[in-house]
Amino acid sequence: MKIIGVDIGGTSIKSAIVDEEGQLLVRFSFRIDPRKSGEETLLELGKLINKTLLDNALSPKDISGIGIGCPGSINSTTGYCDYSNNLRWENLPVVAIVEKLTSIPSKVMNDANAAILGEVRLGAAKGYHSVVMLTLGTGVGGGLYLNDRLYEGNESKGAELGHSLLVMDGRECTCGRFGCLEAYASVSALIKDTLGAMRKDPKSAMWGYVGGDIAKVSGFTAFECAKKGDPSAQKVVDQYIRFLGEGCLNFINVFRPDAIVLGGGLSGQKEALTKPLVAYVASQGFGFGGSHSPKVDIVVSSLGNDAGILGAAALWMKV
Amino acid sequence: MKIIGVDIGGTSIKSAIVDEEGQLLVRFSFRIDPRKSGEETLLELGKLINKTLLDNALSPKDISGIGIGCPGSINSTTGYCDYSNNLRWENLPVVAIVEKLTSIPSKVMNDANAAILGEVRLGAAKGYHSVVMLTLGTGVGGGLYLNDRLYEGNESKGAELGHSLLVMDGRECTCGRFGCLEAYASVSALIKDTLGAMRKDPKSAMWGYVGGDIAKVSGFTAFECAKKGDPSAQKVVDQYIRFLGEGCLNFINVFRPDAIVLGGGLSGQKEALTKPLVAYVASQGFGFGGSHSPKVDIVVSSLGNDAGILGAAALWMKV
Repeated sequence: MKIIGVDIGGTSIKSAIVDEEGQLLVRFSFRIDPRKSGEETLLELGKLINKTLLDNALSPKDISGIGIGCPGSINSTTGYCDYSNNLRWENLPVVAIVEKLTSIPSKVMNDANAAILGEVRLGAAKGYHSVVMLTLGTGVGGGLYLNDRLYEGNESKGAELGHSLLVMDGRECTCGRFGCLEAYASVSALIKDTLGAMRKDPKSAMWGYVGGDIAKVSGFTAFECAKKGDPSAQKVVDQYIRFLGEGCLNFINVFRPDAIVLGGGLSGQKEALTKPLVAYVASQGFGFGGSHSPKVDIVVSSLGNDAGILGAAALWMKV
Repeated sequence: MKIIGVDIGGTSIKSAIVDEEGQLLVRFSFRIDPRKSGEETLLELGKLINKTLLDNALSPKDISGIGIGCPGSINSTTGYCDYSNNLRWENLPVVAIVEKLTSIPSKVMNDANAAILGEVRLGAAKGYHSVVMLTLGTGVGGGLYLNDRLYEGNESKGAELGHSLLVMDGRECTCGRFGCLEAYASVSALIKDTLGAMRKDPKSAMWGYVGGDIAKVSGFTAFECAKKGDPSAQKVVDQYIRFLGEGCLNFINVFRPDAIVLGGGLSGQKEALTKPLVAYVASQGFGFGGSHSPKVDIVVSSLGNDAGILGAAALWMKV
C-alpha cells in the first residue's frame, strides 16, 4: 500500500506519494491562489490527487490514507482547521472535504507536529523517546514528542514553544505578548539584530556580503560573516546563540528530553549553529541539576523541507 | 489488598496504609535525623513499616506494594535516588533497600510527581487529561500529567517548571540561573517582595498583622492584608499574580493543558489566589491564539499535604 503526504504551507501545497518506508515516489504541488476560499483550495488539492493517481496508474484502493499537515489551530480529532491566520481559514472541515473528493481516508494535524513526527520516524530524531523540536523561521515553531508519542495538547493546540517568555515585558511579539522566545530567536529577530549591528558598524564585512543591499540580509548573513572573522557578525551570532541557548535550557529543564531538534531555514547552518549552542548549554550544566542532569543531544533536522510531507504520511505508516 | 504510601520530605517521612480507593486508614511518620545516612534513615522507615503492619494485624501479603515519593533526582526505572540536595542523599538504591527490609514490592518516584498523580487520581485534577501542577512553596515545583499519563522525562527528571525563565538575566535563582520563575513566584520570593513593600511603607497594615516582627512574615501576609484593603499589600499581590500569571501563560502556550493545579502552602489562599489569577490569564486571551485558545481551568490542590502519600500509593492502585 502507498500513502499520500500533504504539506499545506502559507503559499503552496506540496504533496507526494510515499511508500511504507517513507520513500518519496511521486511529488506534486501547486501554488495557493490567495483569492480562493479554503473549500476552493481543497477542491484543487482533491482534483490534483485524483489526477496524480490516474497518471501513475493507481486507484484510491492502492492508498491506505492521506495525511495532511496544515498551519494554524488544527483539531486532529474532528479533522477541522479551526483557525489559520496565514491561510485565513476558519472552521474548515479539511478531512471531510478531502475524503469526499478522493474517497480515501484522511487525517489532518498541525504542520509543526507533522514535521516533528517526520523527524522522529524517519529523520534526525529517530531512536529518541522524548524530543523537543524548534523550527527557526519567520517565527519559532514548536513540536513535542514525549514518551514515544506526539503531544498535541488540548484540542491538539499544544506546543506553541515560541510563545513562552525569554524576557517578561521584553520585545514585542507577533502574538501580542512581550518578551516571547520568538521575538529573540526567530530568523526575523536575527535579521533585525543583524541589521542593527550593520548600522552600528559601517565597516562590517556584512555590508560587502549583501552587496550593500539590506534587503538581501538573511538569517545566514551574520553566521557566514562570523565564519570569515567579522567581529560585528560574531557578536550577533554570540547573542543569538545565547537567546536560543536560554530557550533550549528552559525546555531542557521542563522536559528533560533526549534530544532537541532544530528545524526551519536556519538549521541549514548545521554545525555552525549546533556547535556553539551545545557549548553554551553545556557551560550551564545542561540546566538545573548540574552534573546530575541527563545529557541532551542537540541536532539539526535531516529531512529539511520534506519533514512535513513525510510526517503527515507517517500518520498512516504501520511502524 | 492494601497499599502503603510514603512521602519523604526534607525533615520528616509521612506514611499511611491506604485502601484501593485512596482512603487513609493508618498514618505513621517520623522525623528524619539529619546526622543519619540515607541507608540508616531507610532502615528506620523499614522497621516502622514492619511494626505498623504488626500493630494492625497485617502481614506483607496483605499489602500490594509500597509507593514512595522522594525529593530530588529520582530514577523511577532503576529505583534510585540519584541525588537529593535537601536530604544529601546520593546514588541511594531506595527501592532495593525498602524491598529487602519489608519483603513488599516497592516503587519510588519524585515527590512532585507523586503529588500530581495524587491530585489527578483522587483530588482536584480528577477527570482532566492534561494537567500542569505548580507547587508554590520554598521553591516552585512542577508536575506534568499529559495525555492521561505522568510525564517524567529522561531518567524521570523532567518538569523542573520553576526553572524556566520569566526574565532572562533577572533575579538570581537557587539553581544558578538568573531569572527563573521560581525567583519570582515561589513563596520565598513573595516573602522577599512583601518585606520590601513593608520597608517602603511603615504605615502598611502588614506591620500590625505580623505584630511588628518581620520573622513572622509569610506568604499569607500580603494576601490577608490586601483583603483588608491595605494598598501596599494589594500591590504586592497584584505583582505576584502577574508573575505567576505570566508563568501560567507560558505553560498554557506550551502544553494547552485542560487544567493548572496550584499546590504548596500558598494554595491555602484558595479563591484569593485563583480568582485574580484566572482574571489575569483571561485578560491575556489564555495565551497565544486569543478567542481560538482552548479554555484552561486553574484550580487549587484538594488533597493538600496528603497529595504526596496518596500519589505514591496510587502507583499501586488498579484504576
